[in-house]
Amino acid sequence: MFNDNDKSRDTRDSEPRERDDIIIGRNAVAEAFRSGRAVDSLFVARGERSGSVSKLIAIAKDKGVVVKEVDPKKLDFMCAHGNHQGVIAQCAVKEYSEIDDIFALAQQRGESPFIIICDEIEDPHNFGAIIRTAESAGAHGIIVPKRRSAPLSYAVGKASAGAVEYMPIARVGNLASAMDELKQRGMWIYCADMDGEPYYGTDLRGAIALVIGSEGYGVGRLIKEKCDFCLSLPMKGKINSLNASVAAGIIMYEISRQRLLDR
Amino acid sequence: MFNDNDKSRDTRDSEPRERDDIIIGRNAVAEAFRSGRAVDSLFVARGERSGSVSKLIAIAKDKGVVVKEVDPKKLDFMCAHGNHQGVIAQCAVKEYSEIDDIFALAQQRGESPFIIICDEIEDPHNFGAIIRTAESAGAHGIIVPKRRSAPLSYAVGKASAGAVEYMPIARVGNLASAMDELKQRGMWIYCADMDGEPYYGTDLRGAIALVIGSEGYGVGRLIKEKCDFCLSLPMKGKINSLNASVAAGIIMYEISRQRLLDR
Repeated sequence: MFNDNDKSRDTRDSEPRERDDIIIGRNAVAEAFRSGRAVDSLFVARGERSGSVSKLIAIAKDKGVVVKEVDPKKLDFMCAHGNHQGVIAQCAVKEYSEIDDIFALAQQRGESPFIIICDEIEDPHNFGAIIRTAESAGAHGIIVPKRRSAPLSYAVGKASAGAVEYMPIARVGNLASAMDELKQRGMWIYCADMDGEPYYGTDLRGAIALVIGSEGYGVGRLIKEKCDFCLSLPMKGKINSLNASVAAGIIMYEISRQRLLDR
Repeated sequence: MFNDNDKSRDTRDSEPRERDDIIIGRNAVAEAFRSGRAVDSLFVARGERSGSVSKLIAIAKDKGVVVKEVDPKKLDFMCAHGNHQGVIAQCAVKEYSEIDDIFALAQQRGESPFIIICDEIEDPHNFGAIIRTAESAGAHGIIVPKRRSAPLSYAVGKASAGAVEYMPIARVGNLASAMDELKQRGMWIYCADMDGEPYYGTDLRGAIALVIGSEGYGVGRLIKEKCDFCLSLPMKGKINSLNASVAAGIIMYEISRQRLLDR
C-alpha cells in the first residue's frame, strides 16, 4: 500500500506517468479521434471553448463520447501536471462490444445467455473484480451505462486480473431500454436488494441477466422496477450490506452452481 | 477516486492528518504503551537506536508487538511529514480478542463454531471486505497471524463498513499451532485451492474453520497441509483465480446457506 502511494507522490514533480489510457493535449486528442481509438470520456477544462477545443467537443458529441467539464486542477492531477492544454481523452483499455456480441458468445458456447448489468458501478476496483468474477463464473458479457460508470481504465483492467480481455463489455446510452431489449430476447432479469427473496431458494437457470447496484445506493428505483425478480442475501449480523463485488460474486456463483447441477 | 487522491496530496505540505490509528513521536508512543492501548506494530527508523528508542523497542518486544525497521522516508509518508522522531506506533482500531472469545460467541448463539482464518491477507480493502462478509454470513470470529497480515487500521475498519466493531478478531503468533488447537476443540478446517473438491458438493455443516489464502500466493504450503479438506471454485473462463475477498465471500455464503437449510 505504502509503495503505491509513494510512487504517486514521486511522479508529482517529475515526468508525467506513462499511462496508455490517458491522452493529453489538443493535437494528440484530435489524432486519437481520427485514428478511431475507443475514447471513453473527453475531459475539458471548465469554460475552455477556444477554437480547437470546441471542435474536439463537437467530434466527441458526434461519436457519442461523454464530455465532462472539470476543474483545471483535476486535469493537472490526471496527467501529473503534464501539458494538457485544457483537454484530456480517457481511452478504454479495450474496445466496447455490442449486446449482439454477448448473445453471439452464448450461442457459440451452446449455453443460455448469462449477462451482468452494472448499474452505476463507479469504483474501478469493484468494477474490475466484477469483470474477473463474471469471467470465471461463465457469464457471456457485461452491460454498463455510458454515464456514471467506471471507464475501462488501466485500474479496472488491473483489478480484473486480465479478464477484461476476454469479457465482452457493452456500453449503452440507456440502461432501461437495454433491459427492455433483453426481455424481448427472452431473458429474465434479476437484481439483488434487501427486500427480495433469498437467492438460494430461487431457480436461477435459463437465460438470465443479473443487475448489480452501485456501491452507495444499490439498484436505482427505475432499474429495479424493470427487473422480473429481486433476490436478497441473508444478513445474519448487524451490518446490512455487502461490498458490491462480493455480493455480485456470491449470486453469480449461485447461478453458475445451478447451471452446473442442471446438466 | 480523484477526490481521495487529491486529499492525500493536499496534506503533504500542511498539518499531519488526524488519524487515530497512528501515534507519532517518542513520548506519545511511550504513553500509548503505558496506557495499555492495543498497538499493532512499532515502526522504527532503520538504524535508530538512541536511548529512548531502544527502550520503546524493548517494551514492544515484551508486549509481543511486532517491531518493523523501515526507511525514514516511509515514516515521513505515514504521518504526512509530521515530527515522528524515528518512531511510529500503528494502533489497532479495536482490541484484538482471544480464540476463547470466538468460541464463547458461538456458544452464546447456540451455534456450531464458524471461524475464518486469514493466511497473510495484507491488502486492507480485502481484509475489510472479508470482515464485513464474515459478519453478514454469521461467522463467530476471525483468526489472523501476527506477522504478514494487514493491521486493524482505519482503512480496514472503513472497508469493513463498521463490521470490525462486531466481529471478534484474534491474533496469534503461530497460525499452525492455532489450527491444531481448533482441531483439538473438534473443528474441521477447510481451505480454498485450485486442486480441491468443488465447494458446492461438499458438506460444510458443523463446526468449521475456513482458511483464506493471500492475494498473491494462495494458502501457504504448511497451512494447507494442516487443513482437513480443500475446496475449489469452478473456473469456467480463462482467468484462474478470483479476488481473495470475493472467493472468501462465495464459500462463506455457501457455508451459511447449508447451515440455514439444515435447520
